[in-house]
Amino acid sequence: MQDIFVKDIAKYKGQEVRLKGWVRNIRSSGKLLFIIFRDGSGDLQTVAFRPDLGDEAFEKAKTLSLESSVIITGTPKAHQKLEGQYELAITSVEPVQIAPEYPIGKKEHGPDFLLSNRHLWIRAPKQWAILRVRHAVYYAICEYLNDNGFFRFDSPILTPNACEGTTTLFEVEYFDEGMAYLSQSGQLYLETGIMSLGRVYDFGPVFRAERSKTRKHLTEFWMMDAEAAYVDHEENMQIQEGLIRHVIRTVLEKCDKELEILERDKEALKAADAPFKKMTHYEAVEYLRERGSEISHGSDLGAPDELLLTEGSAVPVFIEKWPKEIKAFYMKRDPENENLVLGNDLIAPEGFGEIIGGSQREDDYDLLLGRMQAEKMPIEEYRWFLDLRKYGSVPHSGFGIGLERLITWMTGIHHIRETIPFPRMIYRIYP
Amino acid sequence: MQDIFVKDIAKYKGQEVRLKGWVRNIRSSGKLLFIIFRDGSGDLQTVAFRPDLGDEAFEKAKTLSLESSVIITGTPKAHQKLEGQYELAITSVEPVQIAPEYPIGKKEHGPDFLLSNRHLWIRAPKQWAILRVRHAVYYAICEYLNDNGFFRFDSPILTPNACEGTTTLFEVEYFDEGMAYLSQSGQLYLETGIMSLGRVYDFGPVFRAERSKTRKHLTEFWMMDAEAAYVDHEENMQIQEGLIRHVIRTVLEKCDKELEILERDKEALKAADAPFKKMTHYEAVEYLRERGSEISHGSDLGAPDELLLTEGSAVPVFIEKWPKEIKAFYMKRDPENENLVLGNDLIAPEGFGEIIGGSQREDDYDLLLGRMQAEKMPIEEYRWFLDLRKYGSVPHSGFGIGLERLITWMTGIHHIRETIPFPRMIYRIYP
Repeated sequence: MQDIFVKDIAKYKGQEVRLKGWVRNIRSSGKLLFIIFRDGSGDLQTVAFRPDLGDEAFEKAKTLSLESSVIITGTPKAHQKLEGQYELAITSVEPVQIAPEYPIGKKEHGPDFLLSNRHLWIRAPKQWAILRVRHAVYYAICEYLNDNGFFRFDSPILTPNACEGTTTLFEVEYFDEGMAYLSQSGQLYLETGIMSLGRVYDFGPVFRAERSKTRKHLTEFWMMDAEAAYVDHEENMQIQEGLIRHVIRTVLEKCDKELEILERDKEALKAADAPFKKMTHYEAVEYLRERGSEISHGSDLGAPDELLLTEGSAVPVFIEKWPKEIKAFYMKRDPENENLVLGNDLIAPEGFGEIIGGSQREDDYDLLLGRMQAEKMPIEEYRWFLDLRKYGSVPHSGFGIGLERLITWMTGIHHIRETIPFPRMIYRIYP
Repeated sequence: MQDIFVKDIAKYKGQEVRLKGWVRNIRSSGKLLFIIFRDGSGDLQTVAFRPDLGDEAFEKAKTLSLESSVIITGTPKAHQKLEGQYELAITSVEPVQIAPEYPIGKKEHGPDFLLSNRHLWIRAPKQWAILRVRHAVYYAICEYLNDNGFFRFDSPILTPNACEGTTTLFEVEYFDEGMAYLSQSGQLYLETGIMSLGRVYDFGPVFRAERSKTRKHLTEFWMMDAEAAYVDHEENMQIQEGLIRHVIRTVLEKCDKELEILERDKEALKAADAPFKKMTHYEAVEYLRERGSEISHGSDLGAPDELLLTEGSAVPVFIEKWPKEIKAFYMKRDPENENLVLGNDLIAPEGFGEIIGGSQREDDYDLLLGRMQAEKMPIEEYRWFLDLRKYGSVPHSGFGIGLERLITWMTGIHHIRETIPFPRMIYRIYP
């Protein structure tokens, strides 16, 4: 007897096969018993016919409850109504473990209940689909970078200092060495890697102890930072665009079924795979003010601004050349205007907000030191970072992508908490 | 002018090209100036000839110091002595930044000095090679799992409870929720994923606050945990063997140059890509005692035991069926002997020690609960884990690989601290 997965069912038409999985749903109707079976690779309608199975086996199969584990043997045949789909004519049913009443039923549950039962909630079709898209997005990012000469260079999580301020850091007592902090971004460490490997990226968890409670914030989330030697601001944006468009194409290609389950507007995703728009921060503010916003030229963009900027745009929008006051110390100044930095955000369409932040980096030792001193950063602790501008400094640029925000856009879901297996938020550390 | 990378040099034989990178080494000899140039993708010998370059440019090029950044234009030609290699006949040299005397010189440095200058040390050829092997090993693992139906399922780092005891945990104050702990292993969380996705793995940093100071321990290291539904102990070992052999083949195929730099015995790696040996813990102890060890049947294997067990073996050795007392509570008992568990370690050859630990998991609710109570674990906090045995429990197995230990073996290096960009150890948190 061949053991197979649901995903491979089409190859075994007419052959008796065995499948191992769980009962997604079950109902009987006279001499027929329908079991929606799943094995992780997909769902499958299976049908038992009492005269074929025999009374005893049929009755036993009827005892299966939702989420019971079961091994089913049967013969795949084309679905009577749904073209290209298969169902299984059951020849035997072997219960593995009969589940008591499943806590997540058909009634609506509040988010708190679902999050407290996240270990079970992930079995729901929509959650399954999101987790599969997460896998696809993760590897689409890696694939693009690997194909473009980038090497993985894992930044440390436990760090002796804070990358961008100290107010939102988790602290850890590190043996006899005093306090360490959980990384908020691997970027500064990543910059060291370009002098060894040329182009590098990290891709791991980062931590922000912000007391934010919005649908776009997680305490622990996955971040990809990329950094490349001899890449300027313009090329940096080209790499970002190439990467995001590769992610879109991969998700459309590999996750069609998942997008169906999520009722994601696939046309909107397809339309986003076209040349991105670009405006300066100054132009963006002008544009917003013309449309009634009261934003000023020295201000960061709020969520309503991001929404307004991308309204009517099928593609993401780069906002570049920001006022230096509202961006990080390490960004390089615009040679055409000393008050601006060569940084960019990338705003996703459809209201999904910022998905990338990037910039060309300041590569001049004295300028960088001056800015760090002006921000009262502990220079001695960042000596290693300054060394990069001392020993073979080069023009270089990089950017960071929050994995979960990108997944939110790809899947079209409302709240970021569903994009990660076990979300961590201000009031949520269990399970 | 075409900008190219060193790795692509062979495609541009006879064409003038431009390369952007750093000075690895420089020496002059009469009318000739030799610059060993690198750009992250590889090293290249470049040669300037005074009459061709002109006196002024030649003198300027001579001012380049070690680790200065530089843009070099020239024409690739076949190396006069080394077959298949190229050198560059320089037509112009444009210094980008002249480095002061480089702290890592040609003299021997102690490990403490090198670790304090890790941000510079990574530029050394050997460190470059190790980091490239790290990339290859990481993706060889992902590739094998992805090709075998596994989906990425990132376990959380911040956890409310300890997977295997609380003595070696880093603590973090988590908002108003009390203490959280940095994950030591994602395994228990990973087990939830099989009921959604069938086969899952995580691959991220884990943390052990052990006060160990050996060449095989890091405080922060990367761990891959895999878990699969309806996979038993035997199949679990088959997956492990398939994965490790895929990693060996990938490293041999993609990292030939790196292994050369590392002076790695490639024949030893090739020989390890053959069916692995297998012995029970009982057999292993007998084997060791015959060879003079004083190990007893209830004991774990020490490093000298692991060495002795693999001595003379070209392939890794599985040690399976361990005494239950020295293995974790979640391992399934051997149906043939209640005192043993269906767990396995995998010991690498050549003295590189344990690289995998795996087992079939206990899938019976009552047995698992009893063992957790016996270990005085806080049952309420692990309710979610017990739920997996209540709602559709299935036979399942999994295993974990320490990425850095595997890299130590692949690269053949002595100390694990060189296998990760920024190692964290008991006395080491900087840079």
